[in-house]
Amino acid sequence: MSITKVQGFLAQGIAAGIKKNGQADLALIYSHNKCAAAAAYTTNKIQAAPIKVTKEHLEDGFLQAVIINSGNANACTGEQGYAAAKIMCESVAKELKIESNMVGVASTGVIGVELPVNKIKDTVPQLVRNLTRDGGEAAAIAIMTTDTFSKEIFIQKKIGGSLVSIGGMAKGSGMIHPNMATMLAFLTTDANIEPHLLHLALKKTVDVSFNLVSVDGDTSTNDMAIIMANGKSGNNPILEEGEDFKAFCGLLNEACISLAKMMARDGEGATKLLEVKVINAPTYADAKKAVLAIIKSSLVKTALYGEDANWGRIIAALGYSGCAFIPEKTDISLVSSAGEIQTAKKGAGLAFDEDKARLILQEKEVTFIIDLHDGTENATAWGCDLTYDYIKINASYRN
Amino acid sequence: MSITKVQGFLAQGIAAGIKKNGQADLALIYSHNKCAAAAAYTTNKIQAAPIKVTKEHLEDGFLQAVIINSGNANACTGEQGYAAAKIMCESVAKELKIESNMVGVASTGVIGVELPVNKIKDTVPQLVRNLTRDGGEAAAIAIMTTDTFSKEIFIQKKIGGSLVSIGGMAKGSGMIHPNMATMLAFLTTDANIEPHLLHLALKKTVDVSFNLVSVDGDTSTNDMAIIMANGKSGNNPILEEGEDFKAFCGLLNEACISLAKMMARDGEGATKLLEVKVINAPTYADAKKAVLAIIKSSLVKTALYGEDANWGRIIAALGYSGCAFIPEKTDISLVSSAGEIQTAKKGAGLAFDEDKARLILQEKEVTFIIDLHDGTENATAWGCDLTYDYIKINASYRN
Repeated sequence: MSITKVQGFLAQGIAAGIKKNGQADLALIYSHNKCAAAAAYTTNKIQAAPIKVTKEHLEDGFLQAVIINSGNANACTGEQGYAAAKIMCESVAKELKIESNMVGVASTGVIGVELPVNKIKDTVPQLVRNLTRDGGEAAAIAIMTTDTFSKEIFIQKKIGGSLVSIGGMAKGSGMIHPNMATMLAFLTTDANIEPHLLHLALKKTVDVSFNLVSVDGDTSTNDMAIIMANGKSGNNPILEEGEDFKAFCGLLNEACISLAKMMARDGEGATKLLEVKVINAPTYADAKKAVLAIIKSSLVKTALYGEDANWGRIIAALGYSGCAFIPEKTDISLVSSAGEIQTAKKGAGLAFDEDKARLILQEKEVTFIIDLHDGTENATAWGCDLTYDYIKINASYRN
Repeated sequence: MSITKVQGFLAQGIAAGIKKNGQADLALIYSHNKCAAAAAYTTNKIQAAPIKVTKEHLEDGFLQAVIINSGNANACTGEQGYAAAKIMCESVAKELKIESNMVGVASTGVIGVELPVNKIKDTVPQLVRNLTRDGGEAAAIAIMTTDTFSKEIFIQKKIGGSLVSIGGMAKGSGMIHPNMATMLAFLTTDANIEPHLLHLALKKTVDVSFNLVSVDGDTSTNDMAIIMANGKSGNNPILEEGEDFKAFCGLLNEACISLAKMMARDGEGATKLLEVKVINAPTYADAKKAVLAIIKSSLVKTALYGEDANWGRIIAALGYSGCAFIPEKTDISLVSSAGEIQTAKKGAGLAFDEDKARLILQEKEVTFIIDLHDGTENATAWGCDLTYDYIKINASYRN
């Protein structure tokens, strides 16, 4: 279950002293050979220094290593911050004896505080010495901030005559909202695929996975998803948008949606994973607006925490979402492993069994289905409940 | 300090048994003569039955009474709900011996539950009998839901040769976000003004007052602001957009901004009033996008609750707001009656005195000033902190 389960990749995670509590805060991913690589970035106009540097280093479509720190976002840190991100790459390149522009860099943590780059520089040699085929989990732990569990995935599928593997790791868990969330995701694959197709596959996938997760509606300055493909699986090279490309996209979708759901489930303070499905919408754009408005509504999220079937808040969020729909056609159902209950039909409330509704909402995974009966397009988004612990975590995050 | 301090208006508030706890939940405003009247409504696509009915009754630009209930929103209640809103107006009209279309109607409370309209019908005669020149406060109390205090305003100014008065009452305090918030506002004035100019004045004012308040980012299905002008002040009739119209707009602005700030201060669970000022933006639209993104950021709001000067969250919200700005020009300051501190200059963090910052944030009213140094346009929005009590109030609102 990790990025290093894919052949040809090594990783490690370690404590460099960036986090005050001494926990692991520096991770490195390394491939034996140059990888076709692609990235997707935050749409926040404020972009952290590591994003600027990674964009530069990815201009040629190749990477061989990625270094990531947690505990400090290296955002809003001026020229010093840019220099620090460069130094992170250079330190890694020097130890690995590769070009500095073969190294990507990502950071996550508090904004606007100078990065203690010397601590990182001093720790990189040890980090490189300890790179290992078993290091995926340690790396996944080292990129965590307020995450309560590390997020890893490993899946395989036969593509172009070979078994292709994708490994992934990600971190959440606050300041999470499209596009992208405060999230970092790193994917490794042994697929043989051209850089521009890898980029296209990543872009398509991010739109239906990480960009449909919302924890608190805040889009971070640091978000990044990077994929590295080392081509070792021996599959027929993916050089065009044919069947193999589609199959690869399908596999990548599966990996990223799994990671996205883990992020939602581990949203700051969350006790429940919420899935919102809007079905039979006139267009996908409408369905997407609707799922995002509902998934980020504080009132929907607190009602879920209270296990209260206050479906009026769902339809109110639908109403301000900008989605085209006909209120008098709209049905709402609440679903979980404990059952299913319809609370509204044709836009009006139904008398429903409150006890049954509470049993459904008591589950750890709950789905709201909003059927617009006005088309054929569907969208799904993932989020979580809004709880006392979200407040607790965020009221004094810097301390 | 009330709607009945304006000459010619009576009001009352009473318990009709809609609220389970027996508190006042039915209010009536009445003018001795027909009033020029105007209203602004929620932009939510789901519009509650009372909004539909009030729109119909306001087609001719006149009203003589407004009935308001709290405890039930009469939203998503189908044809039955529409009929119930009509019955509310008819009951009032019958007792007051006026036409039914001279009555406006508003509701606030839980969505999707049938309104117990018979309770209202049975209570209206008593409500009408008790209409009084001192009833403004009772009415302001009867429209409250989770509000912790009633919100009233009364101001006067000489316009067109006479002293013109405006009285107002409003309720918050959750599901509050433009346009409009879960808010109801009712304004009375003795100004002599044409209905279409009254409508224009209200529209302009709502845009810079109620539409710049956010408690939780949720726009309700029921929001409405109604103004009634009975013309008793004896001012020269306001028939065009001249000096008198401007003066009236200024007075109305003052009244509505005061009410808007009361709503923000009384946001569900709030302990602090937050004012966000974005100054020197290239356009007003940019400044407005920026203040709204910052005022509704859960991360900014929880940091304020924690009295933590985590200004990185302010600039992150600015970054995803869609506002045009140059990060390298942006300054951020935190201000309260305890002093002022600059935390960022030209987009990068400054070393600042954390103790002083905490003293500033400990005040009950805090202002964040974001200077974009990129134009001359300014906007201000009002909101509050996000606290444990918001969760508590909203996790089981229907119980």
